[in-house]
Amino acid sequence: MRTLKALAFDAFGTLFDVQSVAEVCEAVFPGYGGELSRRWRQKQLEYTWLRSLMGRYANFEQVTDEALRYAAASLNLTLTPENHARLLQAYRALRPFPEVPDVLRQLAQKYTLVVLSNGTAMQLQALLKQHALDRYLGQVFSADAVRVFKPHPHVYAQVEVALKLSRGDIGFVSANGWDVAGAAAYGYWTFRVDRQGVPEETLGFPEAAAGRTLYDLLAVLQT
Amino acid sequence: MRTLKALAFDAFGTLFDVQSVAEVCEAVFPGYGGELSRRWRQKQLEYTWLRSLMGRYANFEQVTDEALRYAAASLNLTLTPENHARLLQAYRALRPFPEVPDVLRQLAQKYTLVVLSNGTAMQLQALLKQHALDRYLGQVFSADAVRVFKPHPHVYAQVEVALKLSRGDIGFVSANGWDVAGAAAYGYWTFRVDRQGVPEETLGFPEAAAGRTLYDLLAVLQT
Repeated sequence: MRTLKALAFDAFGTLFDVQSVAEVCEAVFPGYGGELSRRWRQKQLEYTWLRSLMGRYANFEQVTDEALRYAAASLNLTLTPENHARLLQAYRALRPFPEVPDVLRQLAQKYTLVVLSNGTAMQLQALLKQHALDRYLGQVFSADAVRVFKPHPHVYAQVEVALKLSRGDIGFVSANGWDVAGAAAYGYWTFRVDRQGVPEETLGFPEAAAGRTLYDLLAVLQT
Repeated sequence: MRTLKALAFDAFGTLFDVQSVAEVCEAVFPGYGGELSRRWRQKQLEYTWLRSLMGRYANFEQVTDEALRYAAASLNLTLTPENHARLLQAYRALRPFPEVPDVLRQLAQKYTLVVLSNGTAMQLQALLKQHALDRYLGQVFSADAVRVFKPHPHVYAQVEVALKLSRGDIGFVSANGWDVAGAAAYGYWTFRVDRQGVPEETLGFPEAAAGRTLYDLLAVLQT
């Protein structure tokens, strides 16, 4: 039995399925949904990294908005104010992956569970409440509190500091390989939810374990 | 006539055409050249940003190597040691874009010209020498000297400090929109060589001017 005391979960793509964003993209721009949502997500990540490196932080909602503008422009799609609002709204209506409530319920019996995300605390708390996950995930830690995005160590440090635990007692769970690498470099035990079947990043900070859904995390923690 | 005193040029994609890398990719993995080189380049950039944010600098050659490993794995392509070496070698055999020697020759009559790149000084100087561009580009500034990659302000600051000029006297030229945004945020005048016809980044730090080749930079500077 692994001796972790707390587990921190990334939100987007890890607890919450961003596929519904692609569906709204397709509804707004038929035939372009997949490509628009892929470019939007890629640019959203890039802008979190670029703004952090430039020392020009803006919160995740603003970055998401700016990334959408670029992604649409790169496909020559014209965003009306209505479509723009409808697409951004999709991020406020994400659904958790099917196994999430059950896995969190089981893990909550043994571990302190928290969220650690680039999203703003308000955005994250609204999502958790909407799906009654706030009963399991006691605290929400946001990049917004330290005004720099993952994988900057200040973001990951929040959990260690707030929970008064040592790094080795904390596990971090994310579907984003680069996020797992960032947490591993910081010193947390890591689990990557590899929902899409993509290779591990080759940044030199290996994941401790990986699996296809969060049920595999349960299994790994029990061995 | 614009009153700039110095012009700093990005190297990869700006002075040197990285298309030859795609050609080697295609020769090594027929049918996959375009996709492999696209993924390799994307991952190379991501790793420069991620390592910089994590405070885990490694030089551009190592990052390029790590990015190649990921890109190949993501396409289920197996890299033999020979193919691996051959692909990395492609970065040491880049050709300048056709207009580069002529444009630099003209600009050198009026401005101090330097290189400001993520590449290592050794890598950059070898490329410049190989194509006799070192006669125009007096100094080479590398991210390697400050152990963090663009768009961190420390990288851009090197030119201002070494040339003892004020920021407003320095122009920065790059084919990478995010690099232009980083230099603009730092306070340099900027020109984007938009060789592919992609939109300006929407990071909130607009480019001063843009054009399809470096001849357009000449024209802009003469107006």
